[in-house]
Amino acid sequence: MDSPAFHAYALTSAILAAQLVLLAFWTGAVRGKHKQYVNPEDAAMTKGQVAERDHPDTVRAQRAHMNALENAVPFFVVGALYVATGATKTGAQGYFYTFLAARLLHTVFYFAGKQPFRTIAFAVGALGILGMAFHVIRASL
Amino acid sequence: MDSPAFHAYALTSAILAAQLVLLAFWTGAVRGKHKQYVNPEDAAMTKGQVAERDHPDTVRAQRAHMNALENAVPFFVVGALYVATGATKTGAQGYFYTFLAARLLHTVFYFAGKQPFRTIAFAVGALGILGMAFHVIRASL
Amino acid sequence: MDSPAFHAYALTSAILAAQLVLLAFWTGAVRGKHKQYVNPEDAAMTKGQVAERDHPDTVRAQRAHMNALENAVPFFVVGALYVATGATKTGAQGYFYTFLAARLLHTVFYFAGKQPFRTIAFAVGALGILGMAFHVIRASL
Repeated sequence: MDSPAFHAYALTSAILAAQLVLLAFWTGAVRGKHKQYVNPEDAAMTKGQVAERDHPDTVRAQRAHMNALENAVPFFVVGALYVATGATKTGAQGYFYTFLAARLLHTVFYFAGKQPFRTIAFAVGALGILGMAFHVIRASL
Repeated sequence: MDSPAFHAYALTSAILAAQLVLLAFWTGAVRGKHKQYVNPEDAAMTKGQVAERDHPDTVRAQRAHMNALENAVPFFVVGALYVATGATKTGAQGYFYTFLAARLLHTVFYFAGKQPFRTIAFAVGALGILGMAFHVIRASL
Repeated sequence: MDSPAFHAYALTSAILAAQLVLLAFWTGAVRGKHKQYVNPEDAAMTKGQVAERDHPDTVRAQRAHMNALENAVPFFVVGALYVATGATKTGAQGYFYTFLAARLLHTVFYFAGKQPFRTIAFAVGALGILGMAFHVIRASL
């Protein structure tokens, strides 16, 4: 628990967890700005309007949030297992801080609508997960 | 592994994991009741009808499930790291049981369509995650 | 960290994490094949067309991915806690490898449109999570 690899994992994961919560708040803020809701009780609460689907800006925020979630989940488990199965300090910091930077940039690029940068940020993060998964599988056989 | 903080984490997380599975079963049960499916093979199996979108009741169950999932994920990682980086018994029980109560109530309020209670339950849980993330980040620097 | 139960958990979780990443790549590949995008910047990048919704094949891949994610999340936490609260080698290997087989088959059955096999694979995995959650809750009280 006191290794540099564990510290890098804890720092990276806590920041990514906070990012997920902030993306949920952000989606709610965008929805509130447009006052367009799929839940009638939400529209009644804020004197907004009910619609069959969320506003396009809200849906974009949801997609950014969902992409963050679906990449954070495999990172959280495989990053912890990578530390537990003997990551070096250099290996852990390289994998974790690269993943962290890629995922923070992915959110920025999603909201800014910047391509191919968003796809590159996604690919860097995803390949990092596959690399760590490979290490863990080899160490577990 | 034998600390009171770990026990509170294990108990809270196992209940939240069971909640996620039960919400998946619930969504399936609502879909089955309306016999309206987006997958043709599902409609064929139950002599139901194919539609471009799920029934509104099914979509509400999915939203409740998805909100549970997107909040459970950051809790699972940041709660474990909060224990690992030295949570006190009081701190851990306060954070974990407050989060657990907020998330169980959120599901109830979502199905009952009760506002502003659902939003309050969400906010309590989300702020708890941010509080724990702050502890972990400070302990990891 | 050196128990057979932990090794079975690490191996299973790393494979499931890789599965999640591969499903994300697969969804992107299906979307790219149909060149139909909800993000205008994606359509511009690949000379595709913008649509209000993704192509039905893309949406099926997303549903398979989302089902994998929503079941992997409770497995990751409850599996780790099952190991931490004293799983036997036999219990851990039985739960973990059954879950792994069920979830890999679920993905195959989803893409092949095979029912009732997909629902059976889902149910086997979900009941495994509930079984482990029950063990963890009993050990934590």
